[in-house]
Amino acid sequence: MSLAAAVGTEGQEVPNRRVILKRHVTGFPSEDDMEVVAGAARLAVPPGSAAVVLKNLYLSCDPYMRGRMSKQNRRSYVPAFVPGEVLAGHGVSRVVASAHPDFKVGDHVWGMTGWEEYTLIPNPESLSKINHPEMPLSYYTGVLGMPGLTAYAGLYDVAKPKKGEYFFVSAASGAVGQIVGQLAKLTGCYVVGSAGSDEMVKLLKTKFGFDEAFNYKKEQDLNAALQRYFPEGIDIYFEHVGGTMLDAVLLNMRMHGRIAVCGMISQYNLEQPQGIQNLLSLIIKRVRMEGFMVSDYLGQRHKFEEEMVGYLKDDKIVYVEDVAEGLEKAPAALIGLFTGRNVGKQLVTVTQE
Amino acid sequence: MSLAAAVGTEGQEVPNRRVILKRHVTGFPSEDDMEVVAGAARLAVPPGSAAVVLKNLYLSCDPYMRGRMSKQNRRSYVPAFVPGEVLAGHGVSRVVASAHPDFKVGDHVWGMTGWEEYTLIPNPESLSKINHPEMPLSYYTGVLGMPGLTAYAGLYDVAKPKKGEYFFVSAASGAVGQIVGQLAKLTGCYVVGSAGSDEMVKLLKTKFGFDEAFNYKKEQDLNAALQRYFPEGIDIYFEHVGGTMLDAVLLNMRMHGRIAVCGMISQYNLEQPQGIQNLLSLIIKRVRMEGFMVSDYLGQRHKFEEEMVGYLKDDKIVYVEDVAEGLEKAPAALIGLFTGRNVGKQLVTVTQE
Repeated sequence: MSLAAAVGTEGQEVPNRRVILKRHVTGFPSEDDMEVVAGAARLAVPPGSAAVVLKNLYLSCDPYMRGRMSKQNRRSYVPAFVPGEVLAGHGVSRVVASAHPDFKVGDHVWGMTGWEEYTLIPNPESLSKINHPEMPLSYYTGVLGMPGLTAYAGLYDVAKPKKGEYFFVSAASGAVGQIVGQLAKLTGCYVVGSAGSDEMVKLLKTKFGFDEAFNYKKEQDLNAALQRYFPEGIDIYFEHVGGTMLDAVLLNMRMHGRIAVCGMISQYNLEQPQGIQNLLSLIIKRVRMEGFMVSDYLGQRHKFEEEMVGYLKDDKIVYVEDVAEGLEKAPAALIGLFTGRNVGKQLVTVTQE
Repeated sequence: MSLAAAVGTEGQEVPNRRVILKRHVTGFPSEDDMEVVAGAARLAVPPGSAAVVLKNLYLSCDPYMRGRMSKQNRRSYVPAFVPGEVLAGHGVSRVVASAHPDFKVGDHVWGMTGWEEYTLIPNPESLSKINHPEMPLSYYTGVLGMPGLTAYAGLYDVAKPKKGEYFFVSAASGAVGQIVGQLAKLTGCYVVGSAGSDEMVKLLKTKFGFDEAFNYKKEQDLNAALQRYFPEGIDIYFEHVGGTMLDAVLLNMRMHGRIAVCGMISQYNLEQPQGIQNLLSLIIKRVRMEGFMVSDYLGQRHKFEEEMVGYLKDDKIVYVEDVAEGLEKAPAALIGLFTGRNVGKQLVTVTQE
């Protein structure tokens, strides 16, 4: 996705600031592992290609990106980033040059792009067109984009909730958590979320309409906390964190419960993952634990977009973003995911033009 | 299930040797935790009851029984045994007294009974009638009983194999392992089993027709062993052991693989279960890991019995038993499950009359 290949054909050359990975990361990442550098881009596609050039408007900070910062990316889903090269992630962009019949200049899209001002996309089929530009475009990094589709597919296709079931989501104020909790409420579930600050807990209860929420950092004993919030046990756990929370949840599952495994953010910065001890509960309670990835559900993205736009317009789903302004803030915004600094979906505004 | 309640009504009093638990067990159990004691039984049912009295012929030694020997049976599925009282487990029995309309004297049944010569069953609905007494009756402790139904339901209802898939089963020469491997072969899977001795490995390959088998005790690196036997990865893992084997399997699962969690025998004698580190593979490979218990599938027992009797008569399924003769041998036979001493289904003959 480097623009290097596009240089030398035609089109205006423009400055192109970019966020590069300075070195592979072990343990906890820091801002200093990344650097914002100057560069140049040509607003043209290579001759004979079906590429597009994107002007990036909003970049999405997502926990899975940590995996790509390691040298050996055994624990993530996509190849490792290369030191000296630009980071990549989901974003919202406008097409500024196109040789692809499905995309014309001026179209807004969401999908994988570079952490830079302009990105050449050789295979634009991976991009999704934005059908509701009347919505805030930044929402397509979250509630209307990859995290929203993750919540939607993970809930309906993996967890398969029924009315009246007890639903628990960890990292509940994050991009996926806030949406999946609200969708579970719309399904008629009793919804409890955990988060890492009292401010987020308040948000979950007052803004997102969760039935209950708690600050996991204030709980000495997560098993006791879950017993308190789920005296009848948990039917569905939407898993974002792993580690000790997962072990506590396993002890509190109900018969025929489901654990939809979306991510395990507490493990991403550990060289050795924490061991999970209570898997025997899977047998005792006949639990189905199933991992999933949003990329398998891209076929649902248009149905999802229409449904979610409807919920937003009807105020059935509310949405909170944590916006960092400018590419310079991107490294800190990404690191903040792992310290739990963000309140709501963390994104970076590159430009609003 | 004590016969005490039956005493004092009518019927002949007979000697009734029984295996009792002497004390609750922590860590590895020993023969000395049990004791064979003399007792008496009356071959009559309490007035006004719908009970039956069973003469026990064969008793089944099953790994899950270890959980019932602990004081706090958090990690098993059924209540703890009580010190001084008779052990209970699956067995094959003949009805010698009956007040229940569905059971008459002389019927053969399988189901939960006492580790003793005679057992009063207050609620005989839990028993299954043996419809093929022309088969070896001991088979109803195994291939035609609870372990056989476990293999059948776990395979078809939980793992859902497709022809050509790569299938791995641990503890493969045990009661469930040998059957599930052969059923997977009949479905058209490529089947590999692990076991704890070269003798068992040979049995798996020559007698049970597995495609490959290996002695896990001889492997320094289970991950490397699985890579060798499954260069394309594992579609289905039928889980009996837990611990390091599960962690190695997780690293070798294929996309959309399934792990049917039947048991975790390597963990039953540990005060703290081993931690499982590689659950992130569930996401990366979109794996479904699901626990199940045979008691949920009793509705299929007649269909299962007919199908399995057919396979046995046609030599499509072969079956190996490890038989201990006499109640006195029962404690050692049970302990042997955890040292891996048994070759094939471990059972105890109480009497053949």
